[in-house]
Amino acid sequence: MTTTADRPATSSPTRVISINDGANIIVSHGDYAVIGTRPVRHDGVDKVTGRAVYGGDTRLNGLLFGKVLRSPHVHARIVSIDTSKARAVPGVHAIVTNADLPTAEDREVNLGEGGGNLKYMSDNVLASDLVLYKGHAIAAVAAINVHVAEAACALIEVEYEVLPAVHEIKAAIAEGAPLVHPSLTTKSLGKDTGVHSNITNHARLQIGDPDAAFARADVIAEGEFTTTMVHQGYIEPTNATAMWYADGKVTIWTSTQGSFAARDSTAQILGLPVSRVKAVPQEIGGGFGGKINVYLEPVAALLSRASGRPVKLIMTRAEVFQATGPAPGSYSKVKFGATKDGRLVAASAEIYMESGAYPGSDTGAAMRCLYSPYKIDDMRVDGYDVLTNRPKTAPYRAPGAPQAAFASEQVIDDLARKLGMDPVEFRLLNAAHEGTRLVNGPLHKKVGGIEVLEQTKAHAHYQSDLGTPSPGTKRGRGVAIGYWFNIGLPSSVAISVNADGSVTLVEGSTDIGGSRASIAMQAAEILGVRAEDVRPSVVDTDSIGYTGVTGGSRTTYATGLAAIEAARHVIAQMTARVAKVWSVSPDEVSHDHGAFRAGTRSMSFKDAAGHLDETGGPITGTASLDPQGHGGAFATVTCDVEIDVETGKTQVLKWTIVQDAGKAIHPSYVEGQFQGASAQGIGWALSEEYFMNSKGEMTNTSLLDYRLPTAFDVPMINTVIVEVPNPGHPFGVRGVGEASIVPPMAAVANAIRDAIGVRMHALPMNPGAILHALGTI
Amino acid sequence: MTTTADRPATSSPTRVISINDGANIIVSHGDYAVIGTRPVRHDGVDKVTGRAVYGGDTRLNGLLFGKVLRSPHVHARIVSIDTSKARAVPGVHAIVTNADLPTAEDREVNLGEGGGNLKYMSDNVLASDLVLYKGHAIAAVAAINVHVAEAACALIEVEYEVLPAVHEIKAAIAEGAPLVHPSLTTKSLGKDTGVHSNITNHARLQIGDPDAAFARADVIAEGEFTTTMVHQGYIEPTNATAMWYADGKVTIWTSTQGSFAARDSTAQILGLPVSRVKAVPQEIGGGFGGKINVYLEPVAALLSRASGRPVKLIMTRAEVFQATGPAPGSYSKVKFGATKDGRLVAASAEIYMESGAYPGSDTGAAMRCLYSPYKIDDMRVDGYDVLTNRPKTAPYRAPGAPQAAFASEQVIDDLARKLGMDPVEFRLLNAAHEGTRLVNGPLHKKVGGIEVLEQTKAHAHYQSDLGTPSPGTKRGRGVAIGYWFNIGLPSSVAISVNADGSVTLVEGSTDIGGSRASIAMQAAEILGVRAEDVRPSVVDTDSIGYTGVTGGSRTTYATGLAAIEAARHVIAQMTARVAKVWSVSPDEVSHDHGAFRAGTRSMSFKDAAGHLDETGGPITGTASLDPQGHGGAFATVTCDVEIDVETGKTQVLKWTIVQDAGKAIHPSYVEGQFQGASAQGIGWALSEEYFMNSKGEMTNTSLLDYRLPTAFDVPMINTVIVEVPNPGHPFGVRGVGEASIVPPMAAVANAIRDAIGVRMHALPMNPGAILHALGTI
Repeated sequence: MTTTADRPATSSPTRVISINDGANIIVSHGDYAVIGTRPVRHDGVDKVTGRAVYGGDTRLNGLLFGKVLRSPHVHARIVSIDTSKARAVPGVHAIVTNADLPTAEDREVNLGEGGGNLKYMSDNVLASDLVLYKGHAIAAVAAINVHVAEAACALIEVEYEVLPAVHEIKAAIAEGAPLVHPSLTTKSLGKDTGVHSNITNHARLQIGDPDAAFARADVIAEGEFTTTMVHQGYIEPTNATAMWYADGKVTIWTSTQGSFAARDSTAQILGLPVSRVKAVPQEIGGGFGGKINVYLEPVAALLSRASGRPVKLIMTRAEVFQATGPAPGSYSKVKFGATKDGRLVAASAEIYMESGAYPGSDTGAAMRCLYSPYKIDDMRVDGYDVLTNRPKTAPYRAPGAPQAAFASEQVIDDLARKLGMDPVEFRLLNAAHEGTRLVNGPLHKKVGGIEVLEQTKAHAHYQSDLGTPSPGTKRGRGVAIGYWFNIGLPSSVAISVNADGSVTLVEGSTDIGGSRASIAMQAAEILGVRAEDVRPSVVDTDSIGYTGVTGGSRTTYATGLAAIEAARHVIAQMTARVAKVWSVSPDEVSHDHGAFRAGTRSMSFKDAAGHLDETGGPITGTASLDPQGHGGAFATVTCDVEIDVETGKTQVLKWTIVQDAGKAIHPSYVEGQFQGASAQGIGWALSEEYFMNSKGEMTNTSLLDYRLPTAFDVPMINTVIVEVPNPGHPFGVRGVGEASIVPPMAAVANAIRDAIGVRMHALPMNPGAILHALGTI
Repeated sequence: MTTTADRPATSSPTRVISINDGANIIVSHGDYAVIGTRPVRHDGVDKVTGRAVYGGDTRLNGLLFGKVLRSPHVHARIVSIDTSKARAVPGVHAIVTNADLPTAEDREVNLGEGGGNLKYMSDNVLASDLVLYKGHAIAAVAAINVHVAEAACALIEVEYEVLPAVHEIKAAIAEGAPLVHPSLTTKSLGKDTGVHSNITNHARLQIGDPDAAFARADVIAEGEFTTTMVHQGYIEPTNATAMWYADGKVTIWTSTQGSFAARDSTAQILGLPVSRVKAVPQEIGGGFGGKINVYLEPVAALLSRASGRPVKLIMTRAEVFQATGPAPGSYSKVKFGATKDGRLVAASAEIYMESGAYPGSDTGAAMRCLYSPYKIDDMRVDGYDVLTNRPKTAPYRAPGAPQAAFASEQVIDDLARKLGMDPVEFRLLNAAHEGTRLVNGPLHKKVGGIEVLEQTKAHAHYQSDLGTPSPGTKRGRGVAIGYWFNIGLPSSVAISVNADGSVTLVEGSTDIGGSRASIAMQAAEILGVRAEDVRPSVVDTDSIGYTGVTGGSRTTYATGLAAIEAARHVIAQMTARVAKVWSVSPDEVSHDHGAFRAGTRSMSFKDAAGHLDETGGPITGTASLDPQGHGGAFATVTCDVEIDVETGKTQVLKWTIVQDAGKAIHPSYVEGQFQGASAQGIGWALSEEYFMNSKGEMTNTSLLDYRLPTAFDVPMINTVIVEVPNPGHPFGVRGVGEASIVPPMAAVANAIRDAIGVRMHALPMNPGAILHALGTI
């Protein structure tokens, strides 16, 4: 039996397909029937007509509504909690505090990406003896409605002993700083130093001898950079509903990037085996890494256990900002050295990343990505995790890499300037490729860095001039490149065939960016049916095999592989059925583009599906796998800015993003990833920040004051999809969700440098920062 | 690789296990770790604490509530429908009639068991030109609440032309009877007779030459019998909720015995491909065959399409009685002939079964089961489907067989009396066994008729005397045997392994009688884990492979086979993983009782589950199959009655049911099936009936007036589970849900005959009927 998809992924020559007046371009390989087309996503109509059921839409019989009492202090000891007045409020059904959680001082359970140990996870969900940031949850009330719950929260009496606090990285690492966790000591290079500080971990990655190599360099550039805490900015607020049934089983309904992650974390915090918890993923209104950790799920479960009723909790926007997991701020020192002919020979960096109230940050990923675009023989990066009295940080799209690239890509820009080289040419000259050693040890597999840079250089945008600035403004252009390694993780898919030739596809991957479509299309390609003939469902944790989070740009790659394998399993079984109909051996039947053939006979997939009843009954194909062949992806941003030198306002005029997708399954959703990440990057670059007062309190906790970019801030985002197939996937897929957010901030900074001649060292580069840089204020 | 379940099912000697003071007995074979034990059912706690979500509990955002306008006439032509006043009622969102359904005059789609052709299905859901029974749906309203919908229904103006009607079988087959479908002609023995009548079909099954054989018989007994229409009497009323999404996809939430059947029927009636419809099965509060056909689902869907909102419909009890599918009434003539030494030599019968308003009834199954307990060389049965102006009939537990057995087992009783033989001895002498030819042609496979009769005879009940009657009463004992062939149908199961050693099991079979437990236990036995370690889920039609209805006593057998195959698939994959951990060949690893072994090494299932992450990721085992090895089952009832000769009241004093389960997976639920069917049989025998007035209107449409048996009517039901393994199932399972309702009515009738010396020819045998029989009134 042979199938359509068995042909080599690279059989067709690379070529460019122009779309949308040349604004969006695919540099493509390979022709397929379904892959590369742009069908309407399966969940599209429900979403645009308001029928999709999000976490907040969860409706259950006897539902109660909860509210969380949160710390008004940045750092304090809880002396006492008195809930008696709150319990007396009519309509209050339950009140819970940390005392309702199982004690787990001695248990250390590593929860992987974005997690932490169990004690920290528990304390973050409901504070035990200390509150470590403003908004830290202290108690929760379940009542007949949210107003009663709020009124009861206000009657909970908490006595605090306010403690000194650290508000940001530099203060936290300063000598004599107040300690967030006084008992913790710094681990350095895998060893406990015994030193009590806010640095919980110091790691180093090194290749060769960078100090010696710097001595040989002709030109050196270096700089110090800071970025502030920002939020993923998902529009749907964090929410959870839970029911603790009388037999001790718990079901949670929640907007989550990973139903199994939500299940496992909730089970661990509640001290239950995972088989006692079921997570039902609802539609998700944005996550970007921020909807992996649990905040409300265990609280809702405790309230349900105490009340015997299902309980729903939905955060306000202020709670989302103050009490979920934003992306860490950072402080970096980066230095590159090159020969006078433009060869990078040495690199060193220190990256401090804020973990917030509990240990664990994105430093490791930042360290892995920092130098990845380049071939450098001698390089070192030191990374430091730093505690602050702020919310525990969480992943946000390519976690850590954008902060690192904001530093490194500006220094690279400076180096190119010193060398008098074109910034793209300089990057091309030093571009990493298959076989280049990464700073963390392994060699690059087949990657598209060179192809992406070549397309960047060749693009009409890069070839154009900047045009004439408006009066009182200056224009500049910047480029930057970014890398994300992408991940694998387990995935499960099951495909069942309907008698009408359609199929249902069950997956464990929650759909945060069109993955129903991208998974279904891969199955459709193998089966030889239309994308519309596949009906995908994202199901609960009891209804599919273990599946990792939708994150790390893994889903279209890894769950796609599971869909391919499940579809092949279907075709193998259907081939046998067709053979039975024709009374031939299954070996004589082939399958190609949805047609089964033996000799001159042919049968469509649909007709074959109609024969299942009479040939042995239904067919289900399944796959559970943990793939290892994920390929990293490069993205470049070219941007033109215009700066009003009087007001300091930066307007992005033109934006082009070029990224290697390996193979774009659904080009519109790949372009959407590029465009969405670009928009988020523009916000991160120019306007977004956790604006803190002198007490370390966030003062811009609404979407009116926390300046997400709007349509006025973002130009048309031109995209170029480059397809350098990933050899670890039959269609060549690489993850696309994250690489595109790595270069934007550096690209904007480089454009500002180009426009006004000043190097920007901190985010956000808002009008005040520009005026400061210009010396105006 | 070998597994626990590969050993022969009959390896252990048969023995009796006494339980519950000897009242419930298992005559057993085989020892297993899980099978045969009695764990709490997985859905038990939710159900007893009120947390299980039934169809009526369905909650959706923007939900509207519907009400159906029904015919007040038994037979009428609809001249006109004017909905204008109803549409003007504030709060009314939509009104639909048959005009909203696609016309499908030319399409004939056979829907299998309980179905009919599409035009009839459509017209039964919403009447087109004619109403054919009181309660026939005419229009439906969706409104903001059910009261508004009711008020609007009352304002719909329908003009009728009332037509003459036929109310029961004998009137329907009489010369010159009004015709329910004037255009239909009688098919007889496969040919169209061209005769217009209410008999839609006449079928015949014959073996040998019964007329000649009767001539050789020494003793002949015969009789005519009627049974009335009865309802399955499920407690949860029929309901459906539907949402017609803007992209043309429809989801239905409903209490159904078959989510795929509900999906397919709804799709056909709505003229949609099945892939456009998703059925979400809710918990089901009783079905017994009555929740296979759709009544409200297409109506709810049409109302949703018209209103753009989800719509829920719930029937009142009166609607359930008048407008769903009750079991048919019957009229039978049965004759048996025997030699003077007690050998059955000839049998003939005519069975008329009421199909109600549209063609198609249970006549075929009645014909197949009638003679099945006996070895008779020459036999014939003629079956007739008869239209009446009553609701279209539907399956009710062993559909058709109880009505036939009510007739045949009384004639057998008379024959034994004439021969002066013990009724059990007489049945044993003539008992069918493996190789006995059935009237429909094939030979009996391995069956337990003899074993069941032997246990009946040996039981303390049968060996006891009747005891002393109370003053003014007479006592009698009756026995009867019944047969149900059981069915197969496609089933799909998927099993995924959790890291904590528990597994989730996904199935398409809705759970109407403990099948979550019986399926999970079979998987647990193969996997070598506890029943509690399996977490079963009944999922929607998009989330599992095609699975037939829960009916025909198929589920524990067929879906059990799918669970066994899926579990073996899991074990095969886990064996390979354990081999990887131990660095040995998979061939060297065996699995037995949950332990993997190679040489002296051993690893538990739980430990092996903990190694999945590091050995390749998650594991899912699946199976979709359409098994053909279902085995028929016999049941006997022995009952003692006491009749008050003044009032005519019959009290059942003692009841013993003996049935072949093949292998009882969960004996409590097998006993529950025997006991539930016995209770239903006592109601059918003594008190239940559609009581019709002279206009053919049912006058007892509440559960107060429709006399279901209560605890006052039913004694302790003693059960004996006989286990004659079904060779078509590795554990020997036979379906158990239906055979037990076949003998009760005949057994009660035989006991009444024994008590008062009068043969009862009609159901129900209520006090009035007894007094009539006694000549008192």
